Amino acid sequence: MRHRSHALAAALALSCATLQAATPAKPATPEADATVLRETANALFAPVPATIETVRGQAITAAQVELGKSLWFEPRLSRSHVISCNTCHNVATGGADNVPTSIGHGWQKGPRNSPTVLNAVLNVAQFWDGRAADLKEQAKGPVQASVEMNNTPARVEATLRSIPGYVDAFTRAFPGEREPVNFENMARALEAFETTLVTPDSRFDRFLAGADSLDATELRGLSLFVDKGCSACHSGANIGGQAYYPFGVVERPGAQVLPAGDKGRFAVTQTASDEYVFRAAPLRNVALTAPYFHSGQVWDLRQAVAIMGSSQLGHELDASEVEAITRFLGTLSGRQPQVANPVLPASTSSTPRPE
Amino acid sequence: MRHRSHALAAALALSCATLQAATPAKPATPEADATVLRETANALFAPVPATIETVRGQAITAAQVELGKSLWFEPRLSRSHVISCNTCHNVATGGADNVPTSIGHGWQKGPRNSPTVLNAVLNVAQFWDGRAADLKEQAKGPVQASVEMNNTPARVEATLRSIPGYVDAFTRAFPGEREPVNFENMARALEAFETTLVTPDSRFDRFLAGADSLDATELRGLSLFVDKGCSACHSGANIGGQAYYPFGVVERPGAQVLPAGDKGRFAVTQTASDEYVFRAAPLRNVALTAPYFHSGQVWDLRQAVAIMGSSQLGHELDASEVEAITRFLGTLSGRQPQVANPVLPASTSSTPRPE
Repeated sequence: MRHRSHALAAALALSCATLQAATPAKPATPEADATVLRETANALFAPVPATIETVRGQAITAAQVELGKSLWFEPRLSRSHVISCNTCHNVATGGADNVPTSIGHGWQKGPRNSPTVLNAVLNVAQFWDGRAADLKEQAKGPVQASVEMNNTPARVEATLRSIPGYVDAFTRAFPGEREPVNFENMARALEAFETTLVTPDSRFDRFLAGADSLDATELRGLSLFVDKGCSACHSGANIGGQAYYPFGVVERPGAQVLPAGDKGRFAVTQTASDEYVFRAAPLRNVALTAPYFHSGQVWDLRQAVAIMGSSQLGHELDASEVEAITRFLGTLSGRQPQVANPVLPASTSSTPRPE
Repeated sequence: MRHRSHALAAALALSCATLQAATPAKPATPEADATVLRETANALFAPVPATIETVRGQAITAAQVELGKSLWFEPRLSRSHVISCNTCHNVATGGADNVPTSIGHGWQKGPRNSPTVLNAVLNVAQFWDGRAADLKEQAKGPVQASVEMNNTPARVEATLRSIPGYVDAFTRAFPGEREPVNFENMARALEAFETTLVTPDSRFDRFLAGADSLDATELRGLSLFVDKGCSACHSGANIGGQAYYPFGVVERPGAQVLPAGDKGRFAVTQTASDEYVFRAAPLRNVALTAPYFHSGQVWDLRQAVAIMGSSQLGHELDASEVEAITRFLGTLSGRQPQVANPVLPASTSSTPRPE
């Protein structure tokens, strides 16, 4: 499924097949027994892991995580010295900035809503269009983007090499390398830190594990989420983030929500069938990260649910269905990461100055 | 001394009187015995307290500190929802932003270098010109300044009242009040948190307490700092921040360092003798907070020391004197506060949106 777009029909068929396998006797309904619903849910979804130990098969070290945390909060990665990763992916506010599109260098606005960093390691690829294979590749983007941090790899390396505290930290994080302070290792360290930004232990995950942690409305919402077909695209541990789908497969939403100028994954693949195709949004902590969609134009999660119903599934969900699904989505907020602010090493006379 | 400007002559006389009282037998010299120097230093300076329990005679509560910490990192105090107190007074980087002047709403640049929040509670008053009597009054400024957070008290109150998590936190922090969520209490809570941002246990403070924590060059720097007259203005626990002095009392520095358009405390008092008068900069953690002076135009601490020598004292300090004083200033960096990032409560449908 990686890196391939799917028509919704195929996805729905897959979802239904999974469902039938999990619940051979009777399909889940809003009134379905919670035990049957739990079995169904465990077939479609998975809990967020409490810790992640490896990335691309390599162990993540404590020294890498510690360095990555410093870099995460490091405004000197930006040309202006005022924008850090955390500016737009704020760990205090659901891992995003909660504005329509991010504000970057020179108060320029980015083209798309900032995706949350929380549980991003669970996504099949990064960015709304999946143009980065993993968090390491992703991390190199905003540092260089002219509308974000507007920096260059050479300038980042000159900055980090001018600060003895960073030279030490890179040497500890990447032992045995001849010149450990480089742009690639900056990205690797950021990725290592980001793997710690997971949100386990949501009420939904406790339900998956067998607890009676959802109320009747939330259970109905989960049942509708499956029955109406939401889970065809929003599945797996991150309840989305696993594959690419057209936005507006049944009915294209208005231009404010789906601006004509942003053709999504088409820009990555140059394939006509990828026009207006985006990675299905991961829905973990979605209640914390308004506004919604790549355009960031919808502030109310209920409205977002209703738009998804009509545009993706051809269902005009009624108010009680929207409410139930929205309430279910609220159970996906997990334990937020506890992040201690780093103390960053001071600049020296050879550190490039802000511009 | 509060809120009064001093001519340097008076300040120097005071300093010499203090010195003579502390060291009646022989004046401190670069070769002075460390014990005598310690006595002198204890007469002029004081250690940074490890904790501060009260403000304006009132006890600070844990609930106020906790609320204040959330507000400190709260981007929704700004109209744009992207600027928090910590943006310009970053606890990770010496309590300042380490750029010449801060970047605020719409990428506007502020008129003066951002002062550090660390140990700011020890200053006689706040801002470079002392226009706020205390941290509570100070906190109201940047939230409203059009070039900073560009918000209004009414909008801040509407924002905080729309978020149940804040209503609860204000109620806990200010129990018994009929409407605890208000702009004044926002400022009180921020002040409560800021009183925790002190940096005790610097090497200099350990020296004051009797330890042999300074090397020979640093001891010489301390001795020069006193003998040359620096301590006339930079004294007390915060090594400055206690009174107001003209910048350029002996020789006015160039227009880049002292722009003609910023007349300092004159704007507060409208008194001719307050032209180009500023609060003596507190020098705790000064090695972490380049660039220097209210204009933020000097990046090298050595150069800042040399400018102070010529402009304030009429001394052309030689290179070894500048080096020794700079090395002494490096011993003023204390234990940086360990601040855990808060998890901020989510907005609701009635929260004002970013503009």
